[in-house]
Amino acid sequence: MKLVKTSIRLADGRELLYFDEREGIDRRARDTRDLAPAVTSSQIRCDPLSEEWVIVASHRQGRTHLPPADQCPLCPSRDGRATEIPAADYDVVVFENRFPSLASDPGRVADAGPFARRPGVGRCEVVCFTSDHGGALARLPVGRIRTVVEVWADRTLELGAMDGVEQVFPFENRGEEIGVTLHHPHGQIYAYPFVAPRTARQLDVARAHREATGGCRTCSIVAAEAEGERVVATVPGWLAVVPFAARWPFEVHLYPTRHLPDLPALDDGERDGLAVLLKDVLGRFDGLFDQPLPYMLICHQAPVRRDRDLAHAHLEAFSIRRTATKLKYLASSESGAGVFINDIAPERAAELLRAATSRTGRTGR
Amino acid sequence: MKLVKTSIRLADGRELLYFDEREGIDRRARDTRDLAPAVTSSQIRCDPLSEEWVIVASHRQGRTHLPPADQCPLCPSRDGRATEIPAADYDVVVFENRFPSLASDPGRVADAGPFARRPGVGRCEVVCFTSDHGGALARLPVGRIRTVVEVWADRTLELGAMDGVEQVFPFENRGEEIGVTLHHPHGQIYAYPFVAPRTARQLDVARAHREATGGCRTCSIVAAEAEGERVVATVPGWLAVVPFAARWPFEVHLYPTRHLPDLPALDDGERDGLAVLLKDVLGRFDGLFDQPLPYMLICHQAPVRRDRDLAHAHLEAFSIRRTATKLKYLASSESGAGVFINDIAPERAAELLRAATSRTGRTGR
Repeated sequence: MKLVKTSIRLADGRELLYFDEREGIDRRARDTRDLAPAVTSSQIRCDPLSEEWVIVASHRQGRTHLPPADQCPLCPSRDGRATEIPAADYDVVVFENRFPSLASDPGRVADAGPFARRPGVGRCEVVCFTSDHGGALARLPVGRIRTVVEVWADRTLELGAMDGVEQVFPFENRGEEIGVTLHHPHGQIYAYPFVAPRTARQLDVARAHREATGGCRTCSIVAAEAEGERVVATVPGWLAVVPFAARWPFEVHLYPTRHLPDLPALDDGERDGLAVLLKDVLGRFDGLFDQPLPYMLICHQAPVRRDRDLAHAHLEAFSIRRTATKLKYLASSESGAGVFINDIAPERAAELLRAATSRTGRTGR
Repeated sequence: MKLVKTSIRLADGRELLYFDEREGIDRRARDTRDLAPAVTSSQIRCDPLSEEWVIVASHRQGRTHLPPADQCPLCPSRDGRATEIPAADYDVVVFENRFPSLASDPGRVADAGPFARRPGVGRCEVVCFTSDHGGALARLPVGRIRTVVEVWADRTLELGAMDGVEQVFPFENRGEEIGVTLHHPHGQIYAYPFVAPRTARQLDVARAHREATGGCRTCSIVAAEAEGERVVATVPGWLAVVPFAARWPFEVHLYPTRHLPDLPALDDGERDGLAVLLKDVLGRFDGLFDQPLPYMLICHQAPVRRDRDLAHAHLEAFSIRRTATKLKYLASSESGAGVFINDIAPERAAELLRAATSRTGRTGR
């Protein structure tokens, strides 16, 4: 797949990248806004009790919160209204977040006593999936989702090459129920200056498993789940399954059947397969309760600089909705002890997801 | 402190315990309801990616959800209406949850292939702090909070002695915003059949720290934080501080300054101090935005059967509210990667908490 990639700078110096599905589009439109330089002051702090990093980003309290549709900053610039995207239309666009949790140069901070802190070096990007404000990832044509996969892979390579970046984490938050502040279909990518705690934990487990058996823990899961009662859908090269120990009422893991570290390692056929499978799974999500399901979609990739052979990439899509009218809340057991309580048996969730009519709309492939 | 403890059985066989602050109260009232035996089918499953236990409790979907005040099951039985508590009044009451995530005998399950599962052995208890439906833990007299501390210690010993229990976890969820289903002031206690993931992680860090330095990590934190800019309040034997790497907009850790594993190890003076400090901190919470703050209050205690010397107990109180009108949501970074992003600098949160008028009402000590 060949995308045309064009980099421009927004009025405050942030980078914006157009990813066009065809050649010959004029991308010279300039950002006409009068923007003050974005101020960032993030730092990362190591929790001395758990030795896990936390991001402190105290400049973000004033960020944009659910603007009306006619003031959406992710729509193209049209009718004299300048948005984050200078062009009058686009396929997929990526730009640096104006309210980033991490930034290239957030200023220096110093350690003091037993407390380790570092500048919040990294980068936070916004990925607009479509110029259509009322769209949704699951309702896009497979071809566009394929473009999004390509963009994730591109960003993983580029952000991973930045100084100080240790892990690239593409994700989508969808739905007001999980705090989404902009409705326009979009995801984000965080380039962390550390290996994320959940990834680090999974790598520790994978390492112990490899030392004990010589094999990959994720490969053994894929083998054990294939054709089992928790399978939701498959395409060549991929398995979508409700995990054996699901934490969320509706949770699906998308595993590449081949052992590979990250999205850039996917071959063309596997990228095609992921696009088809994503559309299928997210369509089933919206079919569950005949309403758009609030969900999180994340991509667990290998760290950039270590454990490249050990890690086996996978994606996770999960929802906090447990019935048509009830949400799952993370309360003291989950947030305090780290003990998740799931009210729906994973086998039952898989059954419901297999039965869910895919509501991917009329756009088809 | 001497409480009078009386155990009775509810109509479906569950245990209920009265903890009375004075002697001579008649506790012979019987549960007159016609209750079907509670059915539980929980199991615990080990996530093969992280080797952390998850509780699957698929019998809980139908549990009581925000009943009107005149149907509150935690109020005393009065005026011909039978509730969970047969008596016409009470001080503090503990009973087994009718919709437990864990139970003494949830039935047998079998392992299959690489997936480890066990019966969800353990116990879930409800702790009613007061018979006053409209009350709040922070507004109770210090003497009553002292009773609650005593009850937590009692339950930690009793539940910890049960077969299969590995950790006892007292907590309070407060506020609809975090999914609380009953408004009556109450907490819960989970007796887990495993060491909770967050506890296990902290013990790993504590072990490495002790091997490297010979000392306790928590003791070093207490020493470094004392009289620092993150202190919220102190009483003899205790330090309340916003942690250096706070995950939540408003988060306070309550550390006993003496190295001790759990609540039963507190001496009488330390129990008195904890009651005073809890009232102070939770009162400041409600003063922050001049409204009841949704919060979680948890007690991190040593496992029952291991690492008793290594662990240093502490409590945590934290809120998802970040402004008077905005909540902190756990989205993909937190829920997917385990990376928390805090929009309020811990030092600023401490300043706001120190300035917050304590809204503990007129009940006083």
